[in-house]
Amino acid sequence: MKNPILNPVAKQHSNNTFTADEVGLANRNSGTLLETLRHDVTPVGAHYLLNHFDIPYVESADNWTIELSGLFQKPQSISFAQLQGLAPQTQRVTLECAGNGRRHVQPHWPSQPWSVEAVGTADWTGVSLKSVLELAEPEAHCSEIVFHGTDTGVDGGAVHHFARSLTIENSMLDEVMLAYAMNGQPLLPQHGFPLRLIVPGWYGMASVKWLNKIEAIDYAFQGHQQVGTYVYRDKKDDHGTPVSKIRVRSLLIPPGIPDWSTRQRLIRPGITNIIGRAWCGGGTAVARVELLAGERSIEATVHPSSDRFAWQLWEAQWEATEGQHILSCRATDANGNQQPLEPRWDAAGFGNNAVQQVEVWCEDY
Amino acid sequence: MKNPILNPVAKQHSNNTFTADEVGLANRNSGTLLETLRHDVTPVGAHYLLNHFDIPYVESADNWTIELSGLFQKPQSISFAQLQGLAPQTQRVTLECAGNGRRHVQPHWPSQPWSVEAVGTADWTGVSLKSVLELAEPEAHCSEIVFHGTDTGVDGGAVHHFARSLTIENSMLDEVMLAYAMNGQPLLPQHGFPLRLIVPGWYGMASVKWLNKIEAIDYAFQGHQQVGTYVYRDKKDDHGTPVSKIRVRSLLIPPGIPDWSTRQRLIRPGITNIIGRAWCGGGTAVARVELLAGERSIEATVHPSSDRFAWQLWEAQWEATEGQHILSCRATDANGNQQPLEPRWDAAGFGNNAVQQVEVWCEDY
Repeated sequence: MKNPILNPVAKQHSNNTFTADEVGLANRNSGTLLETLRHDVTPVGAHYLLNHFDIPYVESADNWTIELSGLFQKPQSISFAQLQGLAPQTQRVTLECAGNGRRHVQPHWPSQPWSVEAVGTADWTGVSLKSVLELAEPEAHCSEIVFHGTDTGVDGGAVHHFARSLTIENSMLDEVMLAYAMNGQPLLPQHGFPLRLIVPGWYGMASVKWLNKIEAIDYAFQGHQQVGTYVYRDKKDDHGTPVSKIRVRSLLIPPGIPDWSTRQRLIRPGITNIIGRAWCGGGTAVARVELLAGERSIEATVHPSSDRFAWQLWEAQWEATEGQHILSCRATDANGNQQPLEPRWDAAGFGNNAVQQVEVWCEDY
Repeated sequence: MKNPILNPVAKQHSNNTFTADEVGLANRNSGTLLETLRHDVTPVGAHYLLNHFDIPYVESADNWTIELSGLFQKPQSISFAQLQGLAPQTQRVTLECAGNGRRHVQPHWPSQPWSVEAVGTADWTGVSLKSVLELAEPEAHCSEIVFHGTDTGVDGGAVHHFARSLTIENSMLDEVMLAYAMNGQPLLPQHGFPLRLIVPGWYGMASVKWLNKIEAIDYAFQGHQQVGTYVYRDKKDDHGTPVSKIRVRSLLIPPGIPDWSTRQRLIRPGITNIIGRAWCGGGTAVARVELLAGERSIEATVHPSSDRFAWQLWEAQWEATEGQHILSCRATDANGNQQPLEPRWDAAGFGNNAVQQVEVWCEDY
């Protein structure tokens, strides 16, 4: 077999093809560049981005208000300045898109065709949602809180603004926050300027951006982004199960050097230190990561995370020998949840936490 | 005809398909979100990104040096601190990827499948290249300066680091600079931290990132990124013509609201203010922009740019009537160069400055 990197004509291409709409979404949305997993905090602009509609243009935060309406004893509007006067908190949180891995779930759902790169970690600063809800005093029979963004568009054939709900219990968890800063700077427009929700441990769709309204209700919210999508389904028309917490996952930084277009890796023989990140959404730690190299499983050293909802660094030594290899890593969390080796089926490609596969060619080039 | 946005089953999809490698590149590289054209300076992280190889990991700029070698009378190493001691300059520059528009050139070359979004504008701060070259005193017979980055990988079947040359004359132009800051902050890793070249007016490949060596030579540089790619070619194996300055182009911010997956637009009937940007690489101004709506051409107001190499704002009023429309804009520069209505052929899809096409559906929804 010839080296498929140095002999481009020998390159293997997938027969799986994608539409212009999928490519348009991939150009518009952004994945993390895997080599930035080296950074504890993803560099600004390399954090993954998935925006459903257009980024609302907000010139200044000065006139931004959050309306608390519905089943509150003290419904009110809170100004951005008032929010900034509440006790601030900062948390390092790893966020991941629920559609991460979609393109490996075959036949793939025609949406943002993520491979594995829809993840990022940031230091978010803001105030606890609980402290804000307590100002307005939810009624005793309130069962859900709905978070409304200002971003508006069409999906599922209907015009709507992006909105999601959480149960009142989840809304009162200490870690759920209204964030106005990312890595010590005001939010970037594409990350929700001036204010967004951050729901640590949940896939990214829960962390509503451009948040301007918080509504207390006593029924199950039926918005499109709650029940029309972000639901695990065996078939397109199933009622399904809501997508919620992030499933355990790990990624490795592809070693060696890349081929420009295929991203296959070229590496010299010898001992290589492989590093990566692992995370899970339960607020539980990742207990174990195995580096999988062909038939071999190498136990990785897994470091604790600085924050409960931030990814963990792991490292393992691998001896690269000449020829072709597939490198994977497989994480298991403290509750025994483990990444599958193959994608599990979901009609819309949500929650695919199957192991990453990195093609490596080793030779003394 | 049914509204293709509100009736998703009626959506028209292109038959043009893309490979997993192309989608992988689109996820890895980032396009500007078109609504950010509203900002004079593209928000950090929304600036387009095209990186050939991996982002080199540079922990600190403290030990970074630039080696000036080859045909200099005073070859030397210059430290990052020394560079920062030279007279700084800041320029607002619009950069665009030479492959922007590639996916519309049919049959499309299998590479980063940009539609129209590979553009961005930033305030770059650094020192003039000329001031640095003068420290080292190029020999009289030096004809080219080669700029070497530290990013390394495989392309065209050979391992190399990214390197490009400019003629000595172009290298001495006042506007060519070594930049260490973007929008008032140190460069982000993915934009070349700690130091990069900025060649205003040229497509982005000229602005070498992670720059650590400047070499003076007296022959035509034959590196892969100079002669193996970034060349206009009728056929794959032609010798071709080097890609250099940015061709005149304009973009409009899609009006109304988007459909999530197709990005088709929904708009209500009435007068709409359409705004956009226009630019060209010659350091010449864009003299004219027409907004094209079906058979109609509407003359836009074109505002001057703040800087010679920065894009210009334009605006035009369009009366949206019920039904389907294709909106385009067409710029002409002060030298009479005009955007074509259809892509011009290039084997690798470089330099396609054909007009953007935005599908709009208008109804009183």
